[in-house]
Amino acid sequence: MTKRININADLGEGYGHYAIGNDDAILEIVKSVNVACGLHAGDATIMRDVCLKAKANGVSVGAHPGFNDLWGFGRRQIRMSADDLEYLVAYQLGALAGMAAYAGMKVTHVKPHGALNNMCAVERDYARAVARAIKVVDPSLYYLALSGTEMERAAVDLDVPVAREAFIDRLYEDDGNLRARAHGDAMIRDPAVAAERAVRMVLEGEIVSVNGRRMPTRFDSLCLHGDEPSALAVATACCEALRAAGVELVTLPEMMRAE
Amino acid sequence: MTKRININADLGEGYGHYAIGNDDAILEIVKSVNVACGLHAGDATIMRDVCLKAKANGVSVGAHPGFNDLWGFGRRQIRMSADDLEYLVAYQLGALAGMAAYAGMKVTHVKPHGALNNMCAVERDYARAVARAIKVVDPSLYYLALSGTEMERAAVDLDVPVAREAFIDRLYEDDGNLRARAHGDAMIRDPAVAAERAVRMVLEGEIVSVNGRRMPTRFDSLCLHGDEPSALAVATACCEALRAAGVELVTLPEMMRAE
Amino acid sequence: MTKRININADLGEGYGHYAIGNDDAILEIVKSVNVACGLHAGDATIMRDVCLKAKANGVSVGAHPGFNDLWGFGRRQIRMSADDLEYLVAYQLGALAGMAAYAGMKVTHVKPHGALNNMCAVERDYARAVARAIKVVDPSLYYLALSGTEMERAAVDLDVPVAREAFIDRLYEDDGNLRARAHGDAMIRDPAVAAERAVRMVLEGEIVSVNGRRMPTRFDSLCLHGDEPSALAVATACCEALRAAGVELVTLPEMMRAE
Amino acid sequence: MTKRININADLGEGYGHYAIGNDDAILEIVKSVNVACGLHAGDATIMRDVCLKAKANGVSVGAHPGFNDLWGFGRRQIRMSADDLEYLVAYQLGALAGMAAYAGMKVTHVKPHGALNNMCAVERDYARAVARAIKVVDPSLYYLALSGTEMERAAVDLDVPVAREAFIDRLYEDDGNLRARAHGDAMIRDPAVAAERAVRMVLEGEIVSVNGRRMPTRFDSLCLHGDEPSALAVATACCEALRAAGVELVTLPEMMRAE
Repeated sequence: MTKRININADLGEGYGHYAIGNDDAILEIVKSVNVACGLHAGDATIMRDVCLKAKANGVSVGAHPGFNDLWGFGRRQIRMSADDLEYLVAYQLGALAGMAAYAGMKVTHVKPHGALNNMCAVERDYARAVARAIKVVDPSLYYLALSGTEMERAAVDLDVPVAREAFIDRLYEDDGNLRARAHGDAMIRDPAVAAERAVRMVLEGEIVSVNGRRMPTRFDSLCLHGDEPSALAVATACCEALRAAGVELVTLPEMMRAE
Repeated sequence: MTKRININADLGEGYGHYAIGNDDAILEIVKSVNVACGLHAGDATIMRDVCLKAKANGVSVGAHPGFNDLWGFGRRQIRMSADDLEYLVAYQLGALAGMAAYAGMKVTHVKPHGALNNMCAVERDYARAVARAIKVVDPSLYYLALSGTEMERAAVDLDVPVAREAFIDRLYEDDGNLRARAHGDAMIRDPAVAAERAVRMVLEGEIVSVNGRRMPTRFDSLCLHGDEPSALAVATACCEALRAAGVELVTLPEMMRAE
Repeated sequence: MTKRININADLGEGYGHYAIGNDDAILEIVKSVNVACGLHAGDATIMRDVCLKAKANGVSVGAHPGFNDLWGFGRRQIRMSADDLEYLVAYQLGALAGMAAYAGMKVTHVKPHGALNNMCAVERDYARAVARAIKVVDPSLYYLALSGTEMERAAVDLDVPVAREAFIDRLYEDDGNLRARAHGDAMIRDPAVAAERAVRMVLEGEIVSVNGRRMPTRFDSLCLHGDEPSALAVATACCEALRAAGVELVTLPEMMRAE
Repeated sequence: MTKRININADLGEGYGHYAIGNDDAILEIVKSVNVACGLHAGDATIMRDVCLKAKANGVSVGAHPGFNDLWGFGRRQIRMSADDLEYLVAYQLGALAGMAAYAGMKVTHVKPHGALNNMCAVERDYARAVARAIKVVDPSLYYLALSGTEMERAAVDLDVPVAREAFIDRLYEDDGNLRARAHGDAMIRDPAVAAERAVRMVLEGEIVSVNGRRMPTRFDSLCLHGDEPSALAVATACCEALRAAGVELVTLPEMMRAE
């Protein structure tokens, strides 16, 4: 049987006159995008534009909610109540649904952004706040959760559909955690290395840690970063290698229905 | 046959730690509220709270989109492209729909806020931009438009359901326009005067201008301002006088279905 | 010799159409104010207004810089680099100096706001970032630091003029730390209790902890909160009791020159 | 006697993680920069960085205040009271002075940004509001005003030092106004055309309109736009052509002292 995988990337992270990333190119490579929702980045005009282009490219669209922190680009850890955080996420889910209507699309997943994603990975209260927002606004949305984290547990506990993700372009420690960006080698920027890694992950169902430890991991989607200068080359190489290895690249809903 | 009317007021215009107005009291008096959507005022936490309380009070909920201008509270006229404005409104419609889900409610109308409402009243491009946003995000939403303005025309032209409103607590000029706030008497703050005026408007279907001109006007909803110190007393007096005159106060959807 | 003390309070924490606190009344009671600088609260119009009124009341003016977080009112802990924080503080010091020019006044002290103040109390990097901003923008500014904290140490280490403060209306633990607001009794809202406490602090130079421990403490200024409903009554009672006990209330620069 | 001229460009218009323009390259070409002050663009970290680099390059620094409108990048016309606008400008002048202290520099001029500049050119109230802010915060600042506009008149009327500017890279109508950007040819993007134009302006003291009308014009500074893709090539060509024609390029204070 054909192996399939979903590949996702963050998108639409400009704001007003500010542009960032290679949205148009990324949209031709990946199969799902996480769209910034106007609070840490993104705005109504950009969100609509990304949705229309996603539709044209057969790419599924997810919400990429972040802290209300434009200056920090959602990368600053902010302490707020889990309740307020939940509502902040719900607001962003609703807003993106409004803009996706321009493309006649439904939003199909949710993936927290930046500092919020990092905090949700390890903080139960935050991870569950996101799950509750999903349940209220649209309980059919997949919670795209880093495999093995509090996010995954929150989705399971609260009966929210969960899609598990792993990172192609980030190193993992032996304990399964992502290697902190403070380490110079945390990010994999060599297209060939990333591509070989991606194929192994999908064909073998395992991640290899920085010290060579083989960790069998369940995942439905592989994440690529869109904001690195190397992003486009890495994304292209990974997708080509996967296809060459006989792996079909599909949208997240297609991936989940296949299971 | 019993006369019916809808009364609407703006609500949820605080932000973070900032509170404004008498939301709880107003929610017990009016039958429809226009909820700020987070750009000129309001935030996710407040929007959810207002929706839950509206539900509990049998009050219908509309979106009150404004310019992205928190400092100016949406009262500064801002020049932007009609397209960008349309998307800005669509964003706010989606966001409020997300928060209304907490109350299991559907948003049922849209009324622009402050400077945006003033500009939509006289500028065709802006009036139509709001109508287009409605058509895309939820074509069942009523466009709550000041009677006789470009908003009303835009709704009719673009085939968007329209509800017409008139102001209880504002004077009108002989030409049917609202008397500018620069005039000291533009705002009616005397509860007895406002109450008598409200009853006449509903029973006679006419507005009396500042110079005594009688202007037959079609309207489905009467607007009360919530941010004046006199707001509560005026609202209470109007609603009591209307009920005493045999007028039934209903939500906007009830009012529109009755027609 | 006459005992003297400075009393300070936070002020100017509205924004645009949003008002908060009892600025005018507080300005007639205290001798120094900490003025919000437009990032967590406050705006140019309010800052100018507060400076003019401070001048008229013989009140000295300090900067009250906070995180760039209007929604959180500067009360959310935010993780950012110490360098960026330093520049954020310097920006606010400059901005307030610009507005104080309207009153022909010089800003004379700096006191961090909310979450920033809490973080500076215990985090050396943040405490020093504030001190460095002072050194660059105006090295004559007093760093108004909670007595015994990293802020006090940073000022001393970096040779920035330091003024020590203690809280009248907050309980202290036995270790000299402020009792967390999570405790219902953390805040002293009874004017008589606060007044007696204030007099004892000034005459005896000691703080009494929640368990009755007497802690000799050096301070130049006593802080009163302006945003509690009880603020005005507490402030009035404290100042009257201090004056009745023969204590002269002076501005912060007068207090520091007296030493 | 050697001809001299100042050339200015806008700079520091990024925000947080967002970058825009070619700041480093422009700083090596022009002699004065207009630094965004954090409200329509720019932030404390960027402002400090630009000031340090300006210092290193012998470039004088001016404030480039704009509307508080990050989304619109200060290019949306906003209606607000002239008083509030004045304070908004004063705030930005103070903030930049704070950041310039990092380079041990004094800010030496003020040039409004974008929509504010356009409005000040033709609206007396706005033009004077900027002049009043200068008088209060630092009356030694030059008001860098488009020649022949209300800005120039306001500076003269209110006795604020004025420096007159003309645009190298924009076409002029026969009446001396800038050709609106709506026209495709409003912007001069050909380096050779711009360079010839710059030399003629400086040597002949005249601007040639779109229809060939020669308009003798007094100016102390020539403005180059930094945000066009052609900006760098145009700026380089103009400066080289001016130097080849024997024109000395000087900072704005040097230019003004020379008069």
